[in-house]
Amino acid sequence: MTAPLTWSASSRILSVGKSDVAAILKLAEQPEITSFAGGLPDPATFLTAEFAALTAEVMSEVGAAALGYSPSPGLTPMREWLAERMSADGRATSPDEIVVTTGGIAALDLIVKCLVDPGEVVVVGEPAYLAALHVFRSYRARLCGVPVDEHGMDPDALASVLGELARRNTVPRLLYLVPSFQNPSGATIPIERRRRILAVAAKYGVPIVEDAAYRDLRLTGTAPPLFAALAPEQVIFIHTFSKFFAPGVRLGWIAAPRPLIELLVTAKQVQDQCSSTISQYVCCRAGRTGLFDRQLQAAIARYARKRQTMLDAMDAHLPDSARWTRPEGGFYTWVTLPDGADTDALLSAAIEREKIAFVPGSAFFHHGRGQRYMRLCYSF
Amino acid sequence: MTAPLTWSASSRILSVGKSDVAAILKLAEQPEITSFAGGLPDPATFLTAEFAALTAEVMSEVGAAALGYSPSPGLTPMREWLAERMSADGRATSPDEIVVTTGGIAALDLIVKCLVDPGEVVVVGEPAYLAALHVFRSYRARLCGVPVDEHGMDPDALASVLGELARRNTVPRLLYLVPSFQNPSGATIPIERRRRILAVAAKYGVPIVEDAAYRDLRLTGTAPPLFAALAPEQVIFIHTFSKFFAPGVRLGWIAAPRPLIELLVTAKQVQDQCSSTISQYVCCRAGRTGLFDRQLQAAIARYARKRQTMLDAMDAHLPDSARWTRPEGGFYTWVTLPDGADTDALLSAAIEREKIAFVPGSAFFHHGRGQRYMRLCYSF
Repeated sequence: MTAPLTWSASSRILSVGKSDVAAILKLAEQPEITSFAGGLPDPATFLTAEFAALTAEVMSEVGAAALGYSPSPGLTPMREWLAERMSADGRATSPDEIVVTTGGIAALDLIVKCLVDPGEVVVVGEPAYLAALHVFRSYRARLCGVPVDEHGMDPDALASVLGELARRNTVPRLLYLVPSFQNPSGATIPIERRRRILAVAAKYGVPIVEDAAYRDLRLTGTAPPLFAALAPEQVIFIHTFSKFFAPGVRLGWIAAPRPLIELLVTAKQVQDQCSSTISQYVCCRAGRTGLFDRQLQAAIARYARKRQTMLDAMDAHLPDSARWTRPEGGFYTWVTLPDGADTDALLSAAIEREKIAFVPGSAFFHHGRGQRYMRLCYSF
Repeated sequence: MTAPLTWSASSRILSVGKSDVAAILKLAEQPEITSFAGGLPDPATFLTAEFAALTAEVMSEVGAAALGYSPSPGLTPMREWLAERMSADGRATSPDEIVVTTGGIAALDLIVKCLVDPGEVVVVGEPAYLAALHVFRSYRARLCGVPVDEHGMDPDALASVLGELARRNTVPRLLYLVPSFQNPSGATIPIERRRRILAVAAKYGVPIVEDAAYRDLRLTGTAPPLFAALAPEQVIFIHTFSKFFAPGVRLGWIAAPRPLIELLVTAKQVQDQCSSTISQYVCCRAGRTGLFDRQLQAAIARYARKRQTMLDAMDAHLPDSARWTRPEGGFYTWVTLPDGADTDALLSAAIEREKIAFVPGSAFFHHGRGQRYMRLCYSF
């Protein structure tokens, strides 16, 4: 006699729901589709020959240790280089404030694993980065949305949301932001708003997660300071190698206030023990030798051309009733169609009739609104 | 006015507790200590020049795609090769039953994320793999221990534990086993016990997680069939490249019954989106060209010598009152000292006086018993 195996899903996986990301990436794979959907870097920016040469150098100089386990917080030379890089970007950082991660999403996963219990509140922009929403849902966080406009999150709306939560004795565990060239809106938060958002969050004791995935890909204009530079003790900083170097190495990092580091390292040990040793050696060598900076300059020139082509085409062909953002960097422009438009339906028609794909706005709103919006990616 | 930031840890991270693994790895790092503690492969088995050559081949043949994102379940050529390898090992497998992971612990993390809600029961051997215990705790599973002897988990004891749970209307979500050269005991479960364990688990509808981390490192004797070969629909199989190829690539895989695959892929997207693309290309090429098998043979010869040296030294120097396992493979022997011994205390003395480290048994018992045992690792 045997009992049936049910394979019933945990409540946390049920909370994530069906993955929109997978469906999007699938669309982008079909060769006959012109896809403005997936937020992928252009492979023409990857340095293949240089990558092979760096790997050979590491193998000959470091030897077998480059293929072994590495410390959970990351290789020391990697953390030293990242700390210098962060310090140069205005956030004075020591190597022991850095945890190397297996990409940006794994970084966010670690932070939420450490800090958010089921039912606790995480505040996000609306629209928000869709993979981040999946992470929060997988930890059964309760999501509270704050409107994002062309200058990012609205501090007054944030104050009103946090005030309302406080009246119900609820302190959110995290406020999640992509402050520069936000995915999906392309919006960058100006310095005045950064200061106001920090002040509002500080008033209620809410730590900020600053996801800087696109920060280095500034195509025009001047960068405002990092949230982490303005308030290093209040901000958990995330960055990834996926957008400006190569996603295939699966590396990112966290720079966090010291009280959090030990928790993050424990979480890292149960997530994947350590990130790729060889990838860390190759990446910090690419950083030290100036390869990153050269690649970044070439990538910026390339994305600037693509952005201009996209904006010119939109100016020429989109109807007067549509509005869209003119991002200063990153990969995305965000289109607002007239009230009553339904981009979910439009997507099916676009794929079928025009062989064109994009991401409908509903994917970025955690309650499934946003049908009048769409995200267009010009990077690839 | 500002409210203080508390950085209080989530209950799941508090459940993990302080990491013993980190302390152990720290010990092993000090050059003056002879460490039998960390379960690390010998770096002399890593193929550094070949790794650099394979990377160069991949870069020149695959190009930039090798540095891009890869599908969440894993690269198709990688899953094809792994499916063939599993099929050759008796578990007929199609590529769409495989999910590539960022090492073995990340594989276990995915499975628990998919299937185990807080408070649900996971059955483990006592002693058990310590990093696996951390993963289960991080998902707030309730752990039930079943004694492990020199032939692995005792099926009668398992029947009694599952029967007792059934009387309380509790069906464990998983039974976790390292059936070959178990970490820490070195024990391999013989075929008769495998069949009995499968039958007992089937009676109560409990899926088995078979962690095959050390399976390929058989130094003597004949391999019993995989649990996954005996009952593919009942067993979730985990393997890793960390022990027989190189931990620094951070790759492992799951072969799972089909109903579970979609859940695992969703979980993978929120864990780290995809595993390293370049590492996957290099590893499946190393597999296809026979490099793995050549490396494995060399590693087996090397570990067989080390095992013999260790067992000879133990025969010569350990007192008659101590007993230990003579593993047929893997990295570990498990020492039983007389009742009343305290290896926690012994460890401090051994480090201080003899400059020798090992892992005390208490680390492998989820309620902190096991003070009369210690794990000695001969691999490195």
